[in-house]
Amino acid sequence: MLAYILAGGTGTRFWPMSRQQRPKQLVRLWGDETMIETTAHRLAEPAQEDGVFVVCGPDLVDPISGTLSDFPREQFVIEPMARDTAPAIALAAIQTLERAGDVPFGVFPADHYIGDDDAFGRCLAAAESAADDGHIVTIGIEPSRPETGYGYIHYDDADGAGSGDAPSVHSVEAFVEKPDRKRAKRYLESGEYLWNAGMFVMKPSTLLDEMERQLPQMYEGFLRIRDAWRTEAHEDVLREEFEAMEGISIDYGVMEDARDVVCVPADFTWSDVGHWAALDEVRETDEDDNVIEADAILENVENSVIFSEDSDRLIAGIDLDDMVVVDTQNAVLVLPKNSAQKVRDIVHRLRESGRDDVL
Amino acid sequence: MLAYILAGGTGTRFWPMSRQQRPKQLVRLWGDETMIETTAHRLAEPAQEDGVFVVCGPDLVDPISGTLSDFPREQFVIEPMARDTAPAIALAAIQTLERAGDVPFGVFPADHYIGDDDAFGRCLAAAESAADDGHIVTIGIEPSRPETGYGYIHYDDADGAGSGDAPSVHSVEAFVEKPDRKRAKRYLESGEYLWNAGMFVMKPSTLLDEMERQLPQMYEGFLRIRDAWRTEAHEDVLREEFEAMEGISIDYGVMEDARDVVCVPADFTWSDVGHWAALDEVRETDEDDNVIEADAILENVENSVIFSEDSDRLIAGIDLDDMVVVDTQNAVLVLPKNSAQKVRDIVHRLRESGRDDVL
Repeated sequence: MLAYILAGGTGTRFWPMSRQQRPKQLVRLWGDETMIETTAHRLAEPAQEDGVFVVCGPDLVDPISGTLSDFPREQFVIEPMARDTAPAIALAAIQTLERAGDVPFGVFPADHYIGDDDAFGRCLAAAESAADDGHIVTIGIEPSRPETGYGYIHYDDADGAGSGDAPSVHSVEAFVEKPDRKRAKRYLESGEYLWNAGMFVMKPSTLLDEMERQLPQMYEGFLRIRDAWRTEAHEDVLREEFEAMEGISIDYGVMEDARDVVCVPADFTWSDVGHWAALDEVRETDEDDNVIEADAILENVENSVIFSEDSDRLIAGIDLDDMVVVDTQNAVLVLPKNSAQKVRDIVHRLRESGRDDVL
Repeated sequence: MLAYILAGGTGTRFWPMSRQQRPKQLVRLWGDETMIETTAHRLAEPAQEDGVFVVCGPDLVDPISGTLSDFPREQFVIEPMARDTAPAIALAAIQTLERAGDVPFGVFPADHYIGDDDAFGRCLAAAESAADDGHIVTIGIEPSRPETGYGYIHYDDADGAGSGDAPSVHSVEAFVEKPDRKRAKRYLESGEYLWNAGMFVMKPSTLLDEMERQLPQMYEGFLRIRDAWRTEAHEDVLREEFEAMEGISIDYGVMEDARDVVCVPADFTWSDVGHWAALDEVRETDEDDNVIEADAILENVENSVIFSEDSDRLIAGIDLDDMVVVDTQNAVLVLPKNSAQKVRDIVHRLRESGRDDVL
């Protein structure tokens, strides 16, 4: 199985640690590894080292090479420009066909947290086997709260028990977009819904068949890209086709109407670590439930995130509850945890006012 | 009249802007001037330039010289070590005697805000005249709130109307220590109390007579200091006497039991700018009642203080109310305004743990 790390994200919600030239997947949010390093290490065993690829834009090749030491340049799959996940995954399909034939490949976000690599490997093995049978396979996450920030997978939890220790495989009834609070509660209580974590495994032919049916124009583009694959025109054709392509997500463009999707419910903890306030899902907290990655002096500080890029700077906090303080070389961010989603708004305002110095 | 700026304070409550080598009086809390610069400029007219002196420890001579450009070295009055305000003011008295004879001198904190220099000058003229008559004169501030952080002056508001435009002079009945909330309210409502702002004018002989009566040991010490004043032993005697002296404030050591104190109620706005949350008393606020001295990007931020030492760093704040964010080269401080007094605790903890890098 080939594994593709989707590393095109910009991760504005982790500003000011994440920047244009250092998106979230290149940030060290815990321990010594960047998120993409952790993701690559996790995939190295199921996919074998030379079967792991990184899909990203040309700007990120150097920064990612800097963190993934010894990662060969030929294992980068370069999108000439960002067109959301459907084209990125189709590109992975074409490259799989050209490199290994019509064998299962998986796509994985570069910047998610997974709590148990062994359990992840078992899910992947079950997914690979189902993909080999012609299914599109997604790995879904058992919801732990009525989250309104994720898409959901409505699945049939009755069928598909796995044999022995092997994870079970179930048919998917529908992909559901981000619900409101009330719906999210119903999904959680029903036990018939999983979080859509954006992890998919399938054969190239399975994906391309669905694209031919649902996104015929994009499909034609990828046929032309495939025809030029080993020619001198490769790069030019790739750029032309991407330029002309409409950006669309794999969920909206393919999965919602795909004919044959199955899912493997994950038996590992997972988080998309979507913003600063989510750090306590994936990092150890101190006795006051703080996540601290800084030289910090705190007085009556609870449930907070205190994060500094630079260990030479001290962060002092007094009487804080549920707050986020992030310190970097040229920018400081302070906000309540509940407002963590609004960091995007700040980044948008900075873009509008041309503040490249802090972007 | 000679004017002495008392500049020995350490101002821990403005950490991290104030440091051991840059106490509050050397910080630019508004505009382009440090607080001691503003104080020196304010006194230059009533006292004439060569009549303004700075009383401080040896460590602060260089930093203060750096901000008071062209201020002559011989106008520093150096305390060998800190012994609170009574010895500092006695030293000013001796130096006045030696330099100008028994003429009135005034002492003024280096780090207070005064809203109207002309009104201040008029009060000082009234104070000088009363001091010339042998009174100890204090300039008191009309209270605007039931503040529990200041000492109060109980005065007789009936007597002593000034002639024409001249500020009135009243007899003082008592100096009162910091009251509790209930007492502070009563003081405010009575109209018979002023805030003790630590500004005093008197003749050297008036002060020394009170010291002889109330602090005889200290008085003896200052006689020896005076005897050695123009001799080679001057510095040694000064050090020996200060070393042996007990630290005591002028309020507690002299004023509370002084026989003949009068006051001039100030007709200018005043603040001791005691902590970060007090900045809005003395600085203009924006339309959301924020005090901003920083390159800042704010989203729904109100009643807050956003302060950066370095205009190259951006402070971003989201959904903050009544908060203080202070950013310096090597330390960041975040706290609610209500907790502004607790900055001292942080500084004490940093001292205890030997964190000289941020002190």
